[in-house]
Amino acid sequence: MANPRGGIDLGGTKIQTAIVGDNGEVLGEARRPTPTSGGPQDVADAMAEALREAASAAEVKPAELAGIGVGSPGDVDESTGAVSSAKNLPDWEARFPLAQTLSDDLGAEVRVGNDVQVATEAEFHLGAGKPFKSLIGVFWGTGVGGGLIIDGKPWLGRGAAGEIGHVVVERGGARCPCGNRGCMEAYAGRGAMEAEARRRHEDDDEKTDLFKLMKKHDKPRLTSGIWQRALVQEDKLATDLIDRAYKALGAGVGSAVNLLDPEAVILGGGLGVRFGEAAAERISKQMAHHLFARDRPPPVHVAELGDLGGAIGASLLFSR
Amino acid sequence: MANPRGGIDLGGTKIQTAIVGDNGEVLGEARRPTPTSGGPQDVADAMAEALREAASAAEVKPAELAGIGVGSPGDVDESTGAVSSAKNLPDWEARFPLAQTLSDDLGAEVRVGNDVQVATEAEFHLGAGKPFKSLIGVFWGTGVGGGLIIDGKPWLGRGAAGEIGHVVVERGGARCPCGNRGCMEAYAGRGAMEAEARRRHEDDDEKTDLFKLMKKHDKPRLTSGIWQRALVQEDKLATDLIDRAYKALGAGVGSAVNLLDPEAVILGGGLGVRFGEAAAERISKQMAHHLFARDRPPPVHVAELGDLGGAIGASLLFSR
Repeated sequence: MANPRGGIDLGGTKIQTAIVGDNGEVLGEARRPTPTSGGPQDVADAMAEALREAASAAEVKPAELAGIGVGSPGDVDESTGAVSSAKNLPDWEARFPLAQTLSDDLGAEVRVGNDVQVATEAEFHLGAGKPFKSLIGVFWGTGVGGGLIIDGKPWLGRGAAGEIGHVVVERGGARCPCGNRGCMEAYAGRGAMEAEARRRHEDDDEKTDLFKLMKKHDKPRLTSGIWQRALVQEDKLATDLIDRAYKALGAGVGSAVNLLDPEAVILGGGLGVRFGEAAAERISKQMAHHLFARDRPPPVHVAELGDLGGAIGASLLFSR
Repeated sequence: MANPRGGIDLGGTKIQTAIVGDNGEVLGEARRPTPTSGGPQDVADAMAEALREAASAAEVKPAELAGIGVGSPGDVDESTGAVSSAKNLPDWEARFPLAQTLSDDLGAEVRVGNDVQVATEAEFHLGAGKPFKSLIGVFWGTGVGGGLIIDGKPWLGRGAAGEIGHVVVERGGARCPCGNRGCMEAYAGRGAMEAEARRRHEDDDEKTDLFKLMKKHDKPRLTSGIWQRALVQEDKLATDLIDRAYKALGAGVGSAVNLLDPEAVILGGGLGVRFGEAAAERISKQMAHHLFARDRPPPVHVAELGDLGGAIGASLLFSR
């Protein structure tokens, strides 16, 4: 049996680590908040600490691992393991040698991949995507990320493939956090939805309990849980914005399906997993309006690996 | 040296055939009008006749060919060589065993592929796509077709990949010939543009010389040549509709690039080749508004194989 591998999922709010065995089984795990101040070195220190904690739970030394994979946001250079433009992380615009830094600290080889792409690969190898040879992964959270499996292999393009959140659904439409207009993420990303909710509430005086719920539950932003509560109590603004998000997701995912004709779509991310099957059904329904080959839409399945998918997928960077 | 192969490009208005040698060189060719009445058998007869003519020019017997490839519109089942729903061909809704029919007639093995996909493969192996390992082919003509090369190989999905014309650019927008709304083709396809020109001219009284030019040059429809003449004389309606098409092409191709991050885009089709470098530049410019990775847009190159690309690509079905 080969030595286990480490996986680190670097998110904007938390760092999730896992020690993963040959068959994808999780032997140990740990979680820490992502530092919100300082810089890349502080984030790398917290990542190393969280990895040590998971290794300790799995009773293995980091240096004994067959390798440590990292799923990272921002621009990832897979060949060198350097990361730049990680906009949700503190002071992380310039290129930082993340793989080298972690490797020096932990004594094992480190590879870095795109966070959403490795989560898609985890679902492909071990989760909801197992029965299929081609997949589009759609990670609906703060933004809308995507990952591709084509002909049984990850497709990275020139390093930036899978940006399904930036498929245009409305030419000249809403401003997206990326700076362009009319991207799917401009309607469906939690960040964009929160900004739009605030605008309609404050500027247009639309009534909503979204922000009351946020304060009541002591959240710094409109989390997927807050959106869900607002929907349960039939908050009109929340319902409108979620409907708008589903329409955008249907158009964007439908466009991607028309282009790639995959065997399945896997839905993950904070909102995707929170709304689960209901979201998969609503996206399927909206997507149907846009499909060219109407008679055989690909199934939309909810990601199965949950919060650990990213870390498990990162560990798989050593079995590509 | 292997025996040459045959290629047949089945279009809505013409059938182009070619006999192709080992290195893609054309040893003989022929062209016939596509029958506009009758049914699939009549079309198959005309195809066989055109192939015989090309073979005669190349001084080879059809039965001696190493195989005959067909690029066909409609729903192509590559595994059986059957074609259905070829909407621009006479009475061709039901499934017709095209490969078998031609093979019985001509005495050689016949394979059938999607017309636009094989044209993309021709450009990849022998034309403007030669330097690249990943491509999006955009064929801008009556409709807007697409073909994909991923990791050096054609990507067909479950048989219907590459439908870039049906990427959504405007949710709830213009009605597309496919029946959906807001597809790129609904703004950029020559068919949709002609319908819109007619509507604006007849219903909205917008002035244009498009239809006068069509009659003067004895054309049954607004061909790419007619559009070009109208642009040269600064016809306002023609200019507006072509501008609108470029905007849609920029959004749709930009979306596809965000998803696939290919090394290049190849622009072909009647309008694409007619407008050539100018079209490649305008699409690049419009696409720039929609790219997520703005710092390295893929180049847009004009297809190099011209009218013979489809037939040459079809012959390559025997070297996949």
